[in-house]
Amino acid sequence: VAETEREGTRLEAFSDGVFAIAMTLLVLELTLLPKDVANGIPLWDALTHLWPKFLSFTLSFATILIMWVNHHGLFRRIRKVDAHLLFTNGLLLLFVTFIPFPTALLGDYLTVHGTAADARVAAGFYALAFVAINAAWALMWQAISHRRKAVAPGISDHEARALTLSLVIGFISYATAVGLAFFNALASVGLCMLLAVFWTYQAFRHHPEAE
Amino acid sequence: VAETEREGTRLEAFSDGVFAIAMTLLVLELTLLPKDVANGIPLWDALTHLWPKFLSFTLSFATILIMWVNHHGLFRRIRKVDAHLLFTNGLLLLFVTFIPFPTALLGDYLTVHGTAADARVAAGFYALAFVAINAAWALMWQAISHRRKAVAPGISDHEARALTLSLVIGFISYATAVGLAFFNALASVGLCMLLAVFWTYQAFRHHPEAE
Amino acid sequence: VAETEREGTRLEAFSDGVFAIAMTLLVLELTLLPKDVANGIPLWDALTHLWPKFLSFTLSFATILIMWVNHHGLFRRIRKVDAHLLFTNGLLLLFVTFIPFPTALLGDYLTVHGTAADARVAAGFYALAFVAINAAWALMWQAISHRRKAVAPGISDHEARALTLSLVIGFISYATAVGLAFFNALASVGLCMLLAVFWTYQAFRHHPEAE
Amino acid sequence: VAETEREGTRLEAFSDGVFAIAMTLLVLELTLLPKDVANGIPLWDALTHLWPKFLSFTLSFATILIMWVNHHGLFRRIRKVDAHLLFTNGLLLLFVTFIPFPTALLGDYLTVHGTAADARVAAGFYALAFVAINAAWALMWQAISHRRKAVAPGISDHEARALTLSLVIGFISYATAVGLAFFNALASVGLCMLLAVFWTYQAFRHHPEAE
Repeated sequence: VAETEREGTRLEAFSDGVFAIAMTLLVLELTLLPKDVANGIPLWDALTHLWPKFLSFTLSFATILIMWVNHHGLFRRIRKVDAHLLFTNGLLLLFVTFIPFPTALLGDYLTVHGTAADARVAAGFYALAFVAINAAWALMWQAISHRRKAVAPGISDHEARALTLSLVIGFISYATAVGLAFFNALASVGLCMLLAVFWTYQAFRHHPEAE
Repeated sequence: VAETEREGTRLEAFSDGVFAIAMTLLVLELTLLPKDVANGIPLWDALTHLWPKFLSFTLSFATILIMWVNHHGLFRRIRKVDAHLLFTNGLLLLFVTFIPFPTALLGDYLTVHGTAADARVAAGFYALAFVAINAAWALMWQAISHRRKAVAPGISDHEARALTLSLVIGFISYATAVGLAFFNALASVGLCMLLAVFWTYQAFRHHPEAE
Repeated sequence: VAETEREGTRLEAFSDGVFAIAMTLLVLELTLLPKDVANGIPLWDALTHLWPKFLSFTLSFATILIMWVNHHGLFRRIRKVDAHLLFTNGLLLLFVTFIPFPTALLGDYLTVHGTAADARVAAGFYALAFVAINAAWALMWQAISHRRKAVAPGISDHEARALTLSLVIGFISYATAVGLAFFNALASVGLCMLLAVFWTYQAFRHHPEAE
Repeated sequence: VAETEREGTRLEAFSDGVFAIAMTLLVLELTLLPKDVANGIPLWDALTHLWPKFLSFTLSFATILIMWVNHHGLFRRIRKVDAHLLFTNGLLLLFVTFIPFPTALLGDYLTVHGTAADARVAAGFYALAFVAINAAWALMWQAISHRRKAVAPGISDHEARALTLSLVIGFISYATAVGLAFFNALASVGLCMLLAVFWTYQAFRHHPEAE
């Protein structure tokens, strides 16, 4: 039993490390626009031009944070780690690690560089990254729920259905955000923001009063 | 009880990770000035031009370190983690993660690039980031002190008042540093340095002789 | 005993940190091609030009992840940490830390910059880095197996032979990938991909059903 | 007692995080020379031009790794953490975090950019960073040895004297490397390499057979 406990704990710790680093690396995309620096634009104006970067930084940070909260709520209740869980969790971490790239694109292309078409591509690519994360989460959840009684006996049928439902909602929502991006970049990003608020609300509602 | 203990420990470990990474990423801003490299200026001279970067690196590192010490002094005594604490702590981490950006601006604009107005903007923006951190800290403290008996029974009324007072002082001081920046960039940065020394002194005074 | 346990645990945690950071830093190489940005190429086209970067990012992430799984499978069973293990593990971490550099070269030179000769150099250098990792792993394994009864009593003779064999196979395979690179860059990268799939399969097969 | 144990463990874990991140960030300095990329030099030739970067990467990685081994050997035996230890350890971490900057300068200026005078400045600055680390280590050791019976009762008088002696040797050696840099950059770097080998030998000799 002690051995099992430690195994789960180490996978949790490793995942936490990846979440923490991915969140912190987001700041490296926060730089002044090269053309503003080259043109010697007043710093205050240069800062105001960065609003899409501040927006994408905050949105990605918040979304990864909520994901971490959920990941940690789930793993707390995992009692056994098998190879399927190890590798589906690895796929999830791959996509989490990837997030700084679409975040940077969104910050760069939402308004600043490129055309309206580029803004739509950046928004669609951003939402697509979260579709991928959602899919990885679904695979991981399947690896758990498949043998739930053995792997995570503390999760009730009711809770399992709720988690499945929320993954379905997430998948549909982010896929919709990808679709929206074909028409309007800001609408797509706006939906991603709404989703972050929704997940936060869900986390608040489901989080036990005090653990 | 064991479960609770572990919950608090994991939030602490995750926060520590973000603090450690944010502190370590500061070094990535330490680069020679591109124009010095382009002009083939002797390396020694190029290094002396970097004093604002060394200053902002050291100041931010020291301030985050003290914040970590305080965070760790507080979380050691947290017994229950609810959603409010989770998310106000998340907001704090968002602003801590953000610090390398105003640090880089301060290093770049205090003397080197831009005008005196840019130096004032950089200094004001830097102090503003710490106002934001202070506000997040206040929200987090409110989430704790609101139900202190349940969440952190080990904190006495006296200690709770001291922490509230130090947050008020911090807020006023950093807001003053923002105000000062409208008149003089170095005065604003100097106040931030004084505050770092003051927090260090406070941490020394309040830290138990041996834990 | 408790002291020993902690020692092993801390080396594991430190190694995990390095693995997690090395994996996460890979994303910093994911940037649009400077020439595509300079020429104002449509974002969608610029993204399609990045396939070698997406490939090398995914390949390196997956390979380091599998290595982490194996490292963690091995260290779980280590009971004593001596200086040889400390330093051979350090050598392994040196090469793991190094991986983002050959990954970046592969992403940059497989198709985009340079000549066909450059692509072969990039592929060969990439495979060479894994030869080095394999050699470090062999040294570390020798430091363990040399006094296996004392250091890791839980590992059976059968398992020890299997690990030695898999290191020999790995060495030969990556050395072959280096050799292939003299003739064809894609063949060399393809072999590295096959190896990642093979290691994953091995990890699945050997991983206990539930720990 | 359990509380104390945890305190020491958390400071250890935080320090480990900073060590691990500083070591891993070193790889970000490993990039091809911009002028080689601009001139379309064959990749193999461009790689051979990087030997000073490979050298400084390996030297810094190895030196920080040995420092981590020693740090971890010391902290294992710390039983009480007071404010002096917290802040002198913080100063040590500040300088450890700083190492990627002098490492990058050494990699850039030892042969490639600039003049022979620049190479000497880069080598001297590099050695100076280790003088600073050595000084921080001495302050931290003083904070411990000052009240050794209470803070680290397991350290014998003999061991305490050995650690003091090795800090004095380290200080004199790195100061000598700074001095040498005024005359010859490679001699200075060579001394730093010898020191890394010497510390490794010391760590081997003093490390218990099996913990």
